[in-house]
Amino acid sequence: MNASLLTALNRIVGSRWVRHRPAELVTYAMDGLPTHESLPGVVVIPETPAQVREVVRLLHLLQVPFVARGAGTGLSGGALADPDTVLIALTRLNKILSVDPVQRRAVLQPGVVNARLSEAALPLGLHYVPDPSSQAACTVGGNVAENAGGPHCLKYGVTTNHIVALEVVLPDGSVTRLGSLQGEAWGPDLVGLFVGSEGMFGIATEITVRLERIPESVRTMLADFSTVRGASEAVSAIIAAGIVPAALEMMDRACVAAVEASIYAAGYPTDAAAVLLVELDGQTDAVEAEAATVREILSDRGAREVRSASSPADRARLWQGRKKAFGAMGRIAPDLAVQDAVVPRSALPDIMDEIEKIRRLHDLTISNVFHAGDGNLHPNISFDRRDPAVAARVRLACREIMAACVAAGGSITGEHGVGNDKLDYMSWIFNAETLGAMRAVRRAFDPSEMANPGKVVPVHACREWSVVKSLRQ
Amino acid sequence: MNASLLTALNRIVGSRWVRHRPAELVTYAMDGLPTHESLPGVVVIPETPAQVREVVRLLHLLQVPFVARGAGTGLSGGALADPDTVLIALTRLNKILSVDPVQRRAVLQPGVVNARLSEAALPLGLHYVPDPSSQAACTVGGNVAENAGGPHCLKYGVTTNHIVALEVVLPDGSVTRLGSLQGEAWGPDLVGLFVGSEGMFGIATEITVRLERIPESVRTMLADFSTVRGASEAVSAIIAAGIVPAALEMMDRACVAAVEASIYAAGYPTDAAAVLLVELDGQTDAVEAEAATVREILSDRGAREVRSASSPADRARLWQGRKKAFGAMGRIAPDLAVQDAVVPRSALPDIMDEIEKIRRLHDLTISNVFHAGDGNLHPNISFDRRDPAVAARVRLACREIMAACVAAGGSITGEHGVGNDKLDYMSWIFNAETLGAMRAVRRAFDPSEMANPGKVVPVHACREWSVVKSLRQ
Repeated sequence: MNASLLTALNRIVGSRWVRHRPAELVTYAMDGLPTHESLPGVVVIPETPAQVREVVRLLHLLQVPFVARGAGTGLSGGALADPDTVLIALTRLNKILSVDPVQRRAVLQPGVVNARLSEAALPLGLHYVPDPSSQAACTVGGNVAENAGGPHCLKYGVTTNHIVALEVVLPDGSVTRLGSLQGEAWGPDLVGLFVGSEGMFGIATEITVRLERIPESVRTMLADFSTVRGASEAVSAIIAAGIVPAALEMMDRACVAAVEASIYAAGYPTDAAAVLLVELDGQTDAVEAEAATVREILSDRGAREVRSASSPADRARLWQGRKKAFGAMGRIAPDLAVQDAVVPRSALPDIMDEIEKIRRLHDLTISNVFHAGDGNLHPNISFDRRDPAVAARVRLACREIMAACVAAGGSITGEHGVGNDKLDYMSWIFNAETLGAMRAVRRAFDPSEMANPGKVVPVHACREWSVVKSLRQ
Repeated sequence: MNASLLTALNRIVGSRWVRHRPAELVTYAMDGLPTHESLPGVVVIPETPAQVREVVRLLHLLQVPFVARGAGTGLSGGALADPDTVLIALTRLNKILSVDPVQRRAVLQPGVVNARLSEAALPLGLHYVPDPSSQAACTVGGNVAENAGGPHCLKYGVTTNHIVALEVVLPDGSVTRLGSLQGEAWGPDLVGLFVGSEGMFGIATEITVRLERIPESVRTMLADFSTVRGASEAVSAIIAAGIVPAALEMMDRACVAAVEASIYAAGYPTDAAAVLLVELDGQTDAVEAEAATVREILSDRGAREVRSASSPADRARLWQGRKKAFGAMGRIAPDLAVQDAVVPRSALPDIMDEIEKIRRLHDLTISNVFHAGDGNLHPNISFDRRDPAVAARVRLACREIMAACVAAGGSITGEHGVGNDKLDYMSWIFNAETLGAMRAVRRAFDPSEMANPGKVVPVHACREWSVVKSLRQ
């Protein structure tokens, strides 16, 4: 980065909030995925939306590319920046501006940590539903960028279903508002377009979210199975019975073993091939009725034991292992490559067999933890990236797992985004014309592609969309 | 200028309005004073106040110095910029935003040409009083920067008396409003501080001026004298009689000769040593009474002939030679160095003798045209700057004239400002502590002295003001 750019950034945010020494930059070299690493040119940490605007405008004028970053818990390398790129960390924009219990809306800055939002709403009997496993650290701004999911998104929808309005700094530094308190007033769903755009369309500086009432009653059940197939079939059967649980999570034997060997031990049966967590919520009577049906289905499908909890303390204990699964896996090896793909629910048993084959072939440790209810897999490979041979095998295994999921009729990401990790896979599922259309949309927001450059849309694989379009006209 | 700055400026104003090729820059190498010349690094020509703000903010962030420029008719080199400096030309900000006949105010952008403002106000029976000789070309923004005068400022005051409010882009790109429709509401006179600050305190992007009623009656008289002393004494006698003419202008023989030899010939007597123009305005009866008194004084003091005009056409003819005097002098030689100094009215005859001595010593052509009523001299040297020896003599003569005016109890500028032309003279009339205080005020607006750097306050001659102050405390 040249000195005058540093000086200019210093003037906008104060030199304390501009990081450029290698020792400072290292903090920002990775997100939650250890298979990608890149040192940004400089990190700037604005305090206010006005500073964000000014930084983005300056970078636009000087044609310096930028990447926005929240807490850096992402899992697709989306918040990594190259040495010629400015990383804009939004963690200081951490104010909850208002919580409206009547309209059930909260207005907040992008750097607010996900869990803190629900804490703020709790005294009003409300909560913010999307609950990524990283919710104690990840920011709502990052959730917006990635359209983050979480266990409770099966019933209530992912981030996009909970965002009603955004104030956005476009890549040229201009400011626009998308949506309204009541959602999109008319015309195309620009909020929906922005949520999940992975930092390509600009930076949200103010986010208006929908809050939900905390359900009257919650029942959590834990069932263990001697086969993954049995557990998978139980998942399908529950959905087929017309029940939509608030959450429907599965962990395989390796995952349970990791959890039970850690300080997060939740009393899960370590000899089970798979453990299912089913959570039902709603009116007390309805929950009781659904719980009886679910218990019946689980037993029918071969559950060895079904434990049930409805007190908050008991529920927390059953959930603890699932919520801390990624942390527990961290004990096994220095690094953990968390993968993210989706398959049709019916393909779950087969895909688990495929993953096991790939694991054996490359002699790796893979634990599976996933949102079974919507077929969203998270195969997690524990390894040591300092061993280049192992790292190469991990990369290969990731690729093969992804190929297997696509072959099973699935897709390359359920909730973690494409980032740079899955750039190569995009052409497996989209043709050149579709990718060209994506790029054209990107360029509508950012003609010079300076916002999160090189991510999400593999430029080399795009057909030039305007040409395609003009040929057809 | 580096390429990325050019690109950034292009993005703000459009590449058509960024001039950087030598052939383009030459236009901006001088103002109205041919003794100074400097090519700016780049010229940027914004269209809107928002663009001005953004350009200034960018330059502040990158710590690139800038100079604001109106029509470039200034006469002290104030609007010249060095190759490391960006020149911001404001000629496209040329909108009159409102004219209010009840409050007698107009709101306008800085690039509005002075004469056009009075034209716009004319149908409402109003006019904008300050009327520099360059009023057909100069801009009100430039008038504000230089606190410009003009013939009619004797009675009605100079620019600062006609500006009630300003929207100003400070040198760091922030925007502030000074004054109000009613003038300064309370506290220090910041409008007064800004007017005449010669571009050191920022750029006015919106100017609210006072308009005056066009007087009911106007009488213009032309008197010719066989001696400059006689004409000078008549000037003092008119003021001493308690009459404040709207204008009281003197031209010497050389000036009259130049006018009468040009297409602007006004029928002035070419054998006179001095010609006086006296204009009276106000209520018809009062004007008639004053005119009789003035005529009497002029005759008493030796006027050979007194011509009088009250019809607009006759008045225009009497004024024509004075208004076009600078243009007429342009016929005599390729270049004209217009000087500007003030002396006490009583010193006028002696200073004219001094100027004549200096003229002879250096063998130059000097014509004098000046606002005699307030002792504001304009000795004008016609020369050819392509002859280095002549140019050197012109510089020396200018310096000697200025020294004579200061010795006579005068000052180094009446209405053209200090710019870079008179930088050296500042320490003749201000001590190091006063200059240091001026610099401290400058730094209150512009801590890094990036706005019109190197002008007005000779930095080397300043005592560091904060040190002086702290030693006293």
